[in-house]
Amino acid sequence: MTAPSPISGIRWGSTSLGVRRPDRDDLAVMAIAEGSTCAAVFTRNRFPAAPVTLAREHLALTAPRFLLVNSGNANAGTGAPGMRDALATCRALAVHGDCATEAVLPFSTGIIGEPLPVARITEALPRALEALADDGWAGAARAIMTTDTVPKTSAVTVSIGGTLVTVTGIAKGAGMIAPDMATLLAFVATDAAVSKPVLDACLQHAVAQSFNRITVDGDTSTNDACVLVATARAPAQPMTEPAGEAYQAFSSAVTEVCRTLAQAIVRDGEGATKFVAIEVGGCPSEGAALQIARAVANSPLVKTALFASDPNWGRILAAVGRAVSPDIDAEGLTIHLNGLCVFRDGARAAGLSEENARAAMTVPEIVIAIDLGSGRHAATVWTCDLSYDYVRINAEYRS
Amino acid sequence: MTAPSPISGIRWGSTSLGVRRPDRDDLAVMAIAEGSTCAAVFTRNRFPAAPVTLAREHLALTAPRFLLVNSGNANAGTGAPGMRDALATCRALAVHGDCATEAVLPFSTGIIGEPLPVARITEALPRALEALADDGWAGAARAIMTTDTVPKTSAVTVSIGGTLVTVTGIAKGAGMIAPDMATLLAFVATDAAVSKPVLDACLQHAVAQSFNRITVDGDTSTNDACVLVATARAPAQPMTEPAGEAYQAFSSAVTEVCRTLAQAIVRDGEGATKFVAIEVGGCPSEGAALQIARAVANSPLVKTALFASDPNWGRILAAVGRAVSPDIDAEGLTIHLNGLCVFRDGARAAGLSEENARAAMTVPEIVIAIDLGSGRHAATVWTCDLSYDYVRINAEYRS
Repeated sequence: MTAPSPISGIRWGSTSLGVRRPDRDDLAVMAIAEGSTCAAVFTRNRFPAAPVTLAREHLALTAPRFLLVNSGNANAGTGAPGMRDALATCRALAVHGDCATEAVLPFSTGIIGEPLPVARITEALPRALEALADDGWAGAARAIMTTDTVPKTSAVTVSIGGTLVTVTGIAKGAGMIAPDMATLLAFVATDAAVSKPVLDACLQHAVAQSFNRITVDGDTSTNDACVLVATARAPAQPMTEPAGEAYQAFSSAVTEVCRTLAQAIVRDGEGATKFVAIEVGGCPSEGAALQIARAVANSPLVKTALFASDPNWGRILAAVGRAVSPDIDAEGLTIHLNGLCVFRDGARAAGLSEENARAAMTVPEIVIAIDLGSGRHAATVWTCDLSYDYVRINAEYRS
Repeated sequence: MTAPSPISGIRWGSTSLGVRRPDRDDLAVMAIAEGSTCAAVFTRNRFPAAPVTLAREHLALTAPRFLLVNSGNANAGTGAPGMRDALATCRALAVHGDCATEAVLPFSTGIIGEPLPVARITEALPRALEALADDGWAGAARAIMTTDTVPKTSAVTVSIGGTLVTVTGIAKGAGMIAPDMATLLAFVATDAAVSKPVLDACLQHAVAQSFNRITVDGDTSTNDACVLVATARAPAQPMTEPAGEAYQAFSSAVTEVCRTLAQAIVRDGEGATKFVAIEVGGCPSEGAALQIARAVANSPLVKTALFASDPNWGRILAAVGRAVSPDIDAEGLTIHLNGLCVFRDGARAAGLSEENARAAMTVPEIVIAIDLGSGRHAATVWTCDLSYDYVRINAEYRS
């Protein structure tokens, strides 16, 4: 993770609703300068939370001027009253901020099924607006946390045609994390000038390579959203095509920020003691590689073995064997654990020492490299182990 | 579970290999009378264990006279030597038992990747054969256990055209259990007379309705197998068509025995403290209902909430929303926990009391009833909760 850099045209203000967490902020407002463009991707869950539905509708109508984020209450599974509540908070912010209601996008994360504390939020809005500041990113990163143990921030500076532009992002998420859209909340902004269609394409690409390649527990939340705002304040040439050298440099920077945030989420996965990259190669297609990587990453047996620092390639083999499609030749399968070959020619690698294998696993970062020997495509998924603390956190916390 | 009833024409003998478990048996042999028919289904894992491959080949060649089962070593991920080892044990039993090598079907369960202790097994075979007895079922049920805490047995007697026939089965399995073929070892026999094609159809149906409807951890093993033997010793009319009243009665009995064994496996799931039925109804197809039931049953967030006796319908809603296909209308969704309606009309059920909901969950058996209100098809999946002990068992045990 890198410290957040301010983005000209973006201000964040945070405050406490004083409901569940009197000791820390749980409401954040992002103010966006006029003339900015905005892209967003949302959960594919069939029962999206009210704020997801409303943010989608509002974004289709106009360019947003404010993002309104609360943590502790997801406003999900709340039916028609939930939609009215989300709209009421947008309307209140629009009055204070002197903009149209549809220029406010709402985001919520926390407990499902509880009514949103609308009065508390509307009362707190003036305090959040007073706090608005260019350097409010770090405070906002803390305010959007739920079971996260650390705030997640990232920033990259890149030269676009000789002009430096900055991409800064924050994210939250530790559980109910699985790859199928950005399973979390993430807010990224840049001072580059980017047309809306180009920003959309850029975000789609970045999310596919970052948030959609992580998993903590295979569950997909009702509230996921990832937003990318471009304020056009840097004196760089506007990007109006998703191609060319400048776009590629910019797109890489956005992807890097998103990937850093995504990996930070996995590192902070509920109860996680290991950060694990599942690198699958030698596949006939990227889709096949992703399917195998996800099966291994979501296997509770693999994840508990990782927790135990157990070089248990048998469980990896079983997970690959469950995921690999029948039409793929998998006879050339090899498995490496942190560079050590453990499986080759259909059996335990010749000369493998249990001691060396265990030593390779007794570190906090593990690379499981799986090669099918059946093509040139690859994909990587990041995950964490499954520990006692995952069970403790989720048996105690009502999400 | 019901106590096993002897089946005329079937004898079991068990003994200890004296390797990992000097205190209990870990080798079992089933002797099958001549003239019996046999059906089997095996794991769909792409890397099946050597005994699975060999048992498939042998079954295609002739009617088996012996099943040879060892626990503690899976002979999986063992390459060409593993195949030679499995064949060597079959050959040794064939010599002792005076039959063709291909009339022996091998089964193994336990640690993946270790060489099969062939010499120990061949030395132990005479002891197992000496022990062969009609009432050896209970001993065999114990001998095939790995992380199981209780042996699993079931028996049903049914009248076929006025003649009583018996169906008896045993099974093992507690982890690496997911629905995609019989994820475990199960051995079922009957004294009914059933032609091989009819027995195949009967077993396919029974497995689809039992072992393929359970999940402990979503993982599919390399060694799963389920065998059904019919000895034709009862004086009932032979069944030669998978239809008619007699067949229906027999098929129901086989399915009941398999379902009892499957449910016993879930009840004994690694670390399980709850037995949970996920009953999904109101779907446009059985496939859609199964997909939703499996998503809920495999959700670690739902499973940890169950462990905590937490009536957390939000996590159930999120899992359903992840699994339900976009073309299905899901507006009419309702969720009941042990008969108590917790979700209706897109939100928490009106008047739901947290106290009542928690009381409904503070029992060892839970029914989660999910109705999409979008059709007439239904499916049920059985599962268990995810506890500290699941993590402990799988962080300690090398499978």
